[in-house]
Amino acid sequence: VSAKIRRYQSPDEYPFTSDLPDPIIPPLQYPPLLHPNQNVNVNAKIYKSYINDILPRITQNLPDKGESKENYGSTSVRDVECLQSLSRRIHFGKFVAEVKFRSEQEKITELIKKRDTEGLEKSITNEAVEKQVLQRLAAKARTYGRDPAAGADVLNSKEADKVDVDAVVAIYRDIVIPLTKEVEVEYLLARLD
Amino acid sequence: VSAKIRRYQSPDEYPFTSDLPDPIIPPLQYPPLLHPNQNVNVNAKIYKSYINDILPRITQNLPDKGESKENYGSTSVRDVECLQSLSRRIHFGKFVAEVKFRSEQEKITELIKKRDTEGLEKSITNEAVEKQVLQRLAAKARTYGRDPAAGADVLNSKEADKVDVDAVVAIYRDIVIPLTKEVEVEYLLARLD
Repeated sequence: VSAKIRRYQSPDEYPFTSDLPDPIIPPLQYPPLLHPNQNVNVNAKIYKSYINDILPRITQNLPDKGESKENYGSTSVRDVECLQSLSRRIHFGKFVAEVKFRSEQEKITELIKKRDTEGLEKSITNEAVEKQVLQRLAAKARTYGRDPAAGADVLNSKEADKVDVDAVVAIYRDIVIPLTKEVEVEYLLARLD
Repeated sequence: VSAKIRRYQSPDEYPFTSDLPDPIIPPLQYPPLLHPNQNVNVNAKIYKSYINDILPRITQNLPDKGESKENYGSTSVRDVECLQSLSRRIHFGKFVAEVKFRSEQEKITELIKKRDTEGLEKSITNEAVEKQVLQRLAAKARTYGRDPAAGADVLNSKEADKVDVDAVVAIYRDIVIPLTKEVEVEYLLARLD
């Protein structure tokens, strides 16, 4: 369905499957922000991480009420939403990399020519910003993962959290940010070809 | 896709279209909570309200940046999510009506036999609870519709609201609650047939 409404022609949406049907609506002319000679897609890695690493981290402390067969359908709908959101967020790295390339074109061109992946990763890393991202994420996970209409006594306790805030932050730190950097570096390596 | 993963065999999911494909996974045995002789589905009304009443209320004060063609795809994905969530919430009325029927079986049976829709609506209305629902809803719209990581100065101003909280409350009061009551009354009228 997503392919049929041309989701994967949008430069910020990447499919997890191939052999997709053609859109039933005419194509759009998106502004050419990204370099045309790249086709980076890390969805296979995202999928593997989601199953083997992300899901265990956020589900291991849940009461077992979610495990009954009756919940498989709604759970898989949410899984698809989560996967597509993660994919979108991680592939945004391409736009970030493009902006960085344009602002430091000479230096980065040099690194690309030398295939210096370590140097490229260093040039796109900003630890202060990463720290800020994780703090914002913790605030969002804590706020959106609670019922704001619960009593003040509940809201001030950790029991109010529907999702483990520390686990969400760790997932971003250990998986989402590294995969985003991988997208950025791969994009840059393809940037000159 | 939803039909293929048996979403519409779940007693809390109702399709907006007909001629759906068969699920590709085997059916489940849900506990028979609802009376089998009812098939209430107000999705046609929900769809009409969504287009003509709900969308104008929440979009009229938006800056026009959302109106470009490039956003049609992602917007329609969210529309489907909103419609299905509204439908789920409104058809929950069946479960509420069933509980009310079981707790006041004699009185409600009498009203059903007399086809007294006004009396039925009165018997399922609890104004104190409705008021509470609207207050909870306002708290949720205000909290979830803001970036909790924004500065305190922004968070204390109305500009922080990504959605018009009063409009959300009005939509519930004027559309969602009345449609839910309609589902409850229709369900009860079919309860004895």
